[in-house]
Order: sequence, then structure tokens, then C-alpha cells
Amino acid sequence: MNTQKRTVIYVSDGTGITAETLGHGLLTQFDNIEFKPVRFPFLDSEEKVRDCLARINELSRREAVRPIVIMTQTNSDFSAILHQAEAFFIDLFDAFIVPLEQELGSRYTRAVGRSHGHANPEYNSRIAAMNFALAHDDGVSDTDLKNADIILVGVSRSGKTPTSLYLSLQFSLKAANYPLIPEDFERGELPSRLQPYRGKLYGLTIAPEQLQRIRNERRPNSKYSSLENCRYEVAAAEKMMRREGIKWFDTTAKSIEELSVQLMQELELGR
Amino acid sequence: MNTQKRTVIYVSDGTGITAETLGHGLLTQFDNIEFKPVRFPFLDSEEKVRDCLARINELSRREAVRPIVIMTQTNSDFSAILHQAEAFFIDLFDAFIVPLEQELGSRYTRAVGRSHGHANPEYNSRIAAMNFALAHDDGVSDTDLKNADIILVGVSRSGKTPTSLYLSLQFSLKAANYPLIPEDFERGELPSRLQPYRGKLYGLTIAPEQLQRIRNERRPNSKYSSLENCRYEVAAAEKMMRREGIKWFDTTAKSIEELSVQLMQELELGR
Repeated sequence: MNTQKRTVIYVSDGTGITAETLGHGLLTQFDNIEFKPVRFPFLDSEEKVRDCLARINELSRREAVRPIVIMTQTNSDFSAILHQAEAFFIDLFDAFIVPLEQELGSRYTRAVGRSHGHANPEYNSRIAAMNFALAHDDGVSDTDLKNADIILVGVSRSGKTPTSLYLSLQFSLKAANYPLIPEDFERGELPSRLQPYRGKLYGLTIAPEQLQRIRNERRPNSKYSSLENCRYEVAAAEKMMRREGIKWFDTTAKSIEELSVQLMQELELGR
Repeated sequence: MNTQKRTVIYVSDGTGITAETLGHGLLTQFDNIEFKPVRFPFLDSEEKVRDCLARINELSRREAVRPIVIMTQTNSDFSAILHQAEAFFIDLFDAFIVPLEQELGSRYTRAVGRSHGHANPEYNSRIAAMNFALAHDDGVSDTDLKNADIILVGVSRSGKTPTSLYLSLQFSLKAANYPLIPEDFERGELPSRLQPYRGKLYGLTIAPEQLQRIRNERRPNSKYSSLENCRYEVAAAEKMMRREGIKWFDTTAKSIEELSVQLMQELELGR
């Protein structure tokens, strides 16, 4: 079967990020189709909405198949105008908002941007978590480890930094990370700074072959990136984590999303 | 009206992140209700699914109102089991997958985790973008600015770092950022390293009062965080950006999501 191409249009009176995240999750499962994204965010006036309608119809005429529109439009008048477009619609609001209003006995307030404005405490805690993750990346600061929700340990390039950042942005967790380095293995004990915080330590490990590939991009043909050294560090780190009773996860075949959700589960179980 | 409390349960055979992002976008608009999230990810066996069913029913019995279940379950047998729970369902697959299959003339492949595995080139480019953003944060490295998709400039703490990281994680953009500092203002010109890349420079600015609050958390009662200095730096940065023809955005009342989507629009228009 040939690869089919389809335009997917994200339409929103907000950022469109909810629509785009949903679309991404749904459409990547159709693996014989190549999707080209087009974004129309912030459609909050009739003029913008009518302009968008014209552009969707233009795209539709230009292509052999009609585009897919994934939409979060909170204004029902604007929504009705957009639905005149020659397109296939996935309308999050039609599908879910009306039933939700009934279930909750409450009106959807249709306030654009509420989910991530500065006035929202949840937003502020998410940004604070991200700043924390950046400030506590790779052991650069340990003044504040006691305030961390989780501390990831593992050898250099085992996936600590992206996982910490994702945990902070997605789940507002204060995620620090701390490297395990050859000096720790020679001494045969956890870095002393980590010792007071055993309860929040989780380990990441990785197949030495993949670690070698990743390190080799950074420092080609070094001792640091040699397969022999990668094997040594990974084995020593796993030995240390086993001895210290630190639960660890293998990042080799996992995405940061999958890892982050697993770590969240561990934290929730531990509470 | 009193604040109502509702449990919202994210159920998935994958990470559940698509469901959670959608739920977050929808539910935050019901501002008189406090939602408590519970997560059941990775439900990929009948045993796990039946255990989840029991736990949802347990939650339902314990609370005055039934919980809300937001679900992305690709296995239709498992989905049917879960639908027996005493809950209000938002089922992304029921609502959208079947119509999408018809529209696309293609089968949903029901492969868990496809949207973010290591084998996925899109996933890898996203991680590469994040590593780029981290390596090019706050002007720490300029060896590779020519490969940046966008370079954000602005005074210290104007929002460059979170915006760069978000652009990289959400849109796989290689986003660098570079600070504008008092030495640049005295010299009266852009940092020389940025001069070859004018086409990809975008500015961030911020109200001096807010900048003062943010800086004061980091270095209380310093010259750096004084309102007078914040006013001077912001005015000097805006003057420089105006003279150099750098388009800028005010981050004072915007979330990083909103800013990032606006920057994406600029980049798409510029292409």
C-alpha cells in the first residue's frame, strides 16, 4: 500500500495544544499515512474564524482528499461557522463538553487559556517544578534536595535529564537528578549528599550498547564512550543500586513519557 | 456555590498522557469543581483490566458521586470490561477511532506506545531538540547556533529557558536562547555572535514589576533584582530589539504554551 498523505488542521480559540496532543496520539497509530500538520490557534473573533474557514476550504480544494480538522472551539457560534468547512471533523467540544456539563451539573465557563495562565496556581507550580529540575540537573546544586519529590540517579547519559524535565512539565514534580560516576563506584558507596534522601531515590539504567551510541555522539572515540567503559559503569551502577535497595528502570526501550508515568506510579504507590 | 470534588481516573493501555492532557484541558474550565486525578496506565492484560475495574467501582462506592473515567484503551475487549464500571466515561477511542478508520480507509493499528518509542524518528528528533535546547540555554554554547530553528533573546529571567524547552519538547524545534546583558546595552549593539542569525532571532520582554518579583526570588535585595535596574534593562532591551528589527513578545501575562504557539505561528509565516 502506498503512503497516503493527509493534511491535519488544528483549530482552537486557545493554543490548540490539547487538540494537537490528542491528534498526535490518535494519528500516529495509522502508520501507512503521512500527516502534515497546519495550525490555526487563537481564533477568538468572527473575522479570524471566517478567514480560517476560507483557508480550510482552499486546502480542501487543492488536495485530492479533504483535510482532517481537530478542533477545540469553545464559542458555539464560531464552531458552527467552522463546521461549514469541507473537512472531516474531530470536535472535542461537541463530543465531550455537553455530556460533561450534564454530569457535573455545572457550566463549562468557556474561558480561554484558563488551563495555563499566570493566575493559575497549577501553572505556577509547574513552572516552579521546571525551574527546580533545571537547577538540580546533573547534581549541579544540592542545596535543596530535601525539597525534591524525586531524585533520579544513574550513569551519565542514562536518560536522567529528559526524564526529570518531563516529570516537572507534565506532572509538576520537583525532580532532581544526580550522576553516579566512576569515583562513586571505586569508593563503593552512594554519594554522601544523597544518603539522607534514600526514600526518594530511583535509578535509571540502560543497555551498554545503547549508552555507547549515545555517548559516542557527544565524545567520539573516547574512553568515556568506549563499550568496555560503558559496560563497566552500567554493571557497577546496577550493583550499587541493588546493594542500596534503590529501585531502578531500564530506559533502553522506553520513551521518557513511559518512564515518567512509571515513576509517577511508584511515587503514588509509595504514598 | 460550594466547591464540588470529583475523582477523575485516567485509564489507558499506554501511558495515558493523551487522556490526561485532554482531561486537563477540559476539566480546568469547570472552575467550581476540584478534580482529584488517579492514574491507571499500561493496562495491557485482562488481569490488570479486571483489577482496574474493581478499583474504579471501589472508588465509586466510597464517594458520593461516581468518578469520571477518561480512557484511551485500544483493545476493544478490555474496553468493554472497563465500561462495566460505575462511572461517567469519556472514551476517546469510541468517539473518534471508528469514524477516523472510515475516513482514512485504513485500520487503526492498535500498537501501544508507537507515538513515542525509540524506533520512532519523530521521538528521536524531539529528544535531540531537547538536548539542543539544554546545550544552548542562556548562551552557554554558541558553536552550533547555525543549526538552531529559532534563537530567543531577552534579559535574564524574561522567560527564555522555559519557552525554549517547551518549543523543543512540544514541537521538536531546536530552540536556542541567548541573554541580553547590560554590557550589550552599553556597547549599543547585539552580541556579535548573534549577528549572523538575525533571521531566526525573536525577543521576549516582560513588565519590569514582574521581572523584579521573579529576580527577587533568586537574588533578594540585589541590584540585579531592583525595580530601577529591571526598568533600565527592559527599556534598553526593547530599544535594542526595535532598532535591530527583532520582533518581540511580552511574556508578562502569557503562559509558555501560549508563547510557544505564537512563536510557531511566526516561524510558519516566515517560511
